[in-house]
Amino acid sequence: MIQVDKALELIESSTFRMEPTMVALNNAAGMALAFDIYSPINMPPFRNSAMDGYAVILNGRSSYRLNTELKAGDKIQLKPGEATRVFTGAAVPENADTVIMQEWAQPNSDTVEFIKKPKKYANIRKEGEQLKAGELVFKRGTVLNEAAIGLLAGLGISSVEVYANPKVGILVTGNELQQPGGPLQPGCIYESNALMLEVALKKAGVHKIHTYRVKDDLKSTTQKINEALQENDLLLISGGISVGDYDFVKLALESNRVKEVFYRVKQKPGKPLWFGKKDQKIVFALPGNPASSLSCFYVYVLPALKKMTGKPFKINYKIAISAEKITKPLGKTLFQKAIVENGKLSVLKGQSSSMLHSFALSNALACVPENKEEIPENGEVEYIELNL
Amino acid sequence: MIQVDKALELIESSTFRMEPTMVALNNAAGMALAFDIYSPINMPPFRNSAMDGYAVILNGRSSYRLNTELKAGDKIQLKPGEATRVFTGAAVPENADTVIMQEWAQPNSDTVEFIKKPKKYANIRKEGEQLKAGELVFKRGTVLNEAAIGLLAGLGISSVEVYANPKVGILVTGNELQQPGGPLQPGCIYESNALMLEVALKKAGVHKIHTYRVKDDLKSTTQKINEALQENDLLLISGGISVGDYDFVKLALESNRVKEVFYRVKQKPGKPLWFGKKDQKIVFALPGNPASSLSCFYVYVLPALKKMTGKPFKINYKIAISAEKITKPLGKTLFQKAIVENGKLSVLKGQSSSMLHSFALSNALACVPENKEEIPENGEVEYIELNL
Repeated sequence: MIQVDKALELIESSTFRMEPTMVALNNAAGMALAFDIYSPINMPPFRNSAMDGYAVILNGRSSYRLNTELKAGDKIQLKPGEATRVFTGAAVPENADTVIMQEWAQPNSDTVEFIKKPKKYANIRKEGEQLKAGELVFKRGTVLNEAAIGLLAGLGISSVEVYANPKVGILVTGNELQQPGGPLQPGCIYESNALMLEVALKKAGVHKIHTYRVKDDLKSTTQKINEALQENDLLLISGGISVGDYDFVKLALESNRVKEVFYRVKQKPGKPLWFGKKDQKIVFALPGNPASSLSCFYVYVLPALKKMTGKPFKINYKIAISAEKITKPLGKTLFQKAIVENGKLSVLKGQSSSMLHSFALSNALACVPENKEEIPENGEVEYIELNL
Repeated sequence: MIQVDKALELIESSTFRMEPTMVALNNAAGMALAFDIYSPINMPPFRNSAMDGYAVILNGRSSYRLNTELKAGDKIQLKPGEATRVFTGAAVPENADTVIMQEWAQPNSDTVEFIKKPKKYANIRKEGEQLKAGELVFKRGTVLNEAAIGLLAGLGISSVEVYANPKVGILVTGNELQQPGGPLQPGCIYESNALMLEVALKKAGVHKIHTYRVKDDLKSTTQKINEALQENDLLLISGGISVGDYDFVKLALESNRVKEVFYRVKQKPGKPLWFGKKDQKIVFALPGNPASSLSCFYVYVLPALKKMTGKPFKINYKIAISAEKITKPLGKTLFQKAIVENGKLSVLKGQSSSMLHSFALSNALACVPENKEEIPENGEVEYIELNL
């Protein structure tokens, strides 16, 4: 039985980063760059107007002859004393030095008067002002959001090398588990953990997910684990890891030479968490109780997935004010489903490890560390934000 | 020119909720229920053990005869004075009243001694203890997270009625826009807004996205808008809405009888935002500058998408402490790309509306309301959390 921090440390040191892989830019959202990216072009690629207005070679006068020939994208030379209509983002004539905004202009048929005039060089964006060709755009490790993807598209980049997303197997064990569709047989329950984990994995950006189902039987459990280890980078096992006589998972993992890294953590819920590795592959055997399983997913599996995909191995704890006193025994970490609203955290009713209902309505998992016996009312409490 | 709050009010009142639609449970993550859901079964469906241990009819003695016949899921009657092995979640014999945890048990070949004994009825989860058949599980409007989906799967439910996700069209206008793949032509820029908006839409759960591209030409713009309105519930138009002579979008919208609801908002960036409606369809014409476009997406399009999908029309403003003084003119709302870390907000450099770089590295959009001239250093500042 180990502490939560120790468990996280062991998971971090056992988890390998995935290999870089080339993906189309439109599939790279949420992924981390495997290499620095340098700009292939100047951005903007040409001098352009920051305003809708008139490009001029600025002089002391307030009246300019109107040159009406220019269209966005055209390349012309402006004569001294001429003004030409330009729109935001469009190229300005090579020899124009200033753009005067249209709000200051009074155009006539062939001249334009300006009621105000800006400083010389105003409203012109220089070529390469934002990024020069060859300049660093994003460092390796940058996670690509929609703005990053927009920027890279604007540089003409259509694919990027990122850390691959792992293939994840979900192995579900239990004779009592029944698939939905028919009436429930005596002593059976509808299987729910695989779908729950699948949805949580997808939210975390994992899309290569394969679910394996097996009865409580040593031989077939051993075979399925072997198959799942060959086909995946990370394996989540749901159920079957307690010490019960009918629990074959530990034996089956041993036969597959999956090395136990730790078993049992000083926490509630989620005590019977098992974690092991085989070469570069890692295996979590999660508690069979759905809410414990999900709690362990947030606390342990998510940081491992982050490390695998080139992101920092880290839980983003936030701080809220506890709306009530929370008490717990010393020596184990307590995770509680909660609602955080306007910085106030309220623990939900129904914390039993089999009950998903409170998780479904929560937006936070409160974490009271091992070495605390209570969080006073209005005291600070750490939590993990859910449902992002 | 209207205020941000007024713009939001007009968008809210012009936006219609989508019709309910039946989807498979595994595709319902992030969607809002269109109807209340009642439990079809008792949960748990049978009396079961909350522990690995021994089921007994509790009596005063500490020694019980071991009944070794029972397997998880079997249904047997226990004789008085007998104990039988049970595992977490497994059915307990009908006439057993208590489960004694295995940590307190010293099993021999045909008897088991208990060093401690619990109270009568301990460690047995009653049938229907979590939910009774016919009981309300989730109210209409509940957004289904992984726990909710796990719970519904556990009730044997395999499809749910949710508010449909809208089909969204993205119309991109501009003669100067070039697709990636070849060297940039003079006066051209690589088109980036469509992909940026597509990625942002997908993150918001929208997957039916169609992109339309059109040159600056009234006839083809009118036709494409007509086509896009027929095929989508929501239309985003990127570029072409300023007052420039080459901007046909407003005319094309008028020809399609899209009614203008507002044009121009007292904000920076994003002033030239246009919003209109036609019957139950809504149209945003977003500024062509990428960062302005994205800013308007977060502030206006996301709440509209929420309302369409049965969620509250609401921006989730959070509060941080400003790491520096922020000053701005009275009378317009300022949106600034920022980093929030440990509750401290720092505005990023490069706020120009054409620059996506700071958005790419930000995790927050700071919002300084119209009626403020400054946020002092260490003053409270509102922000929208990004990159969730």
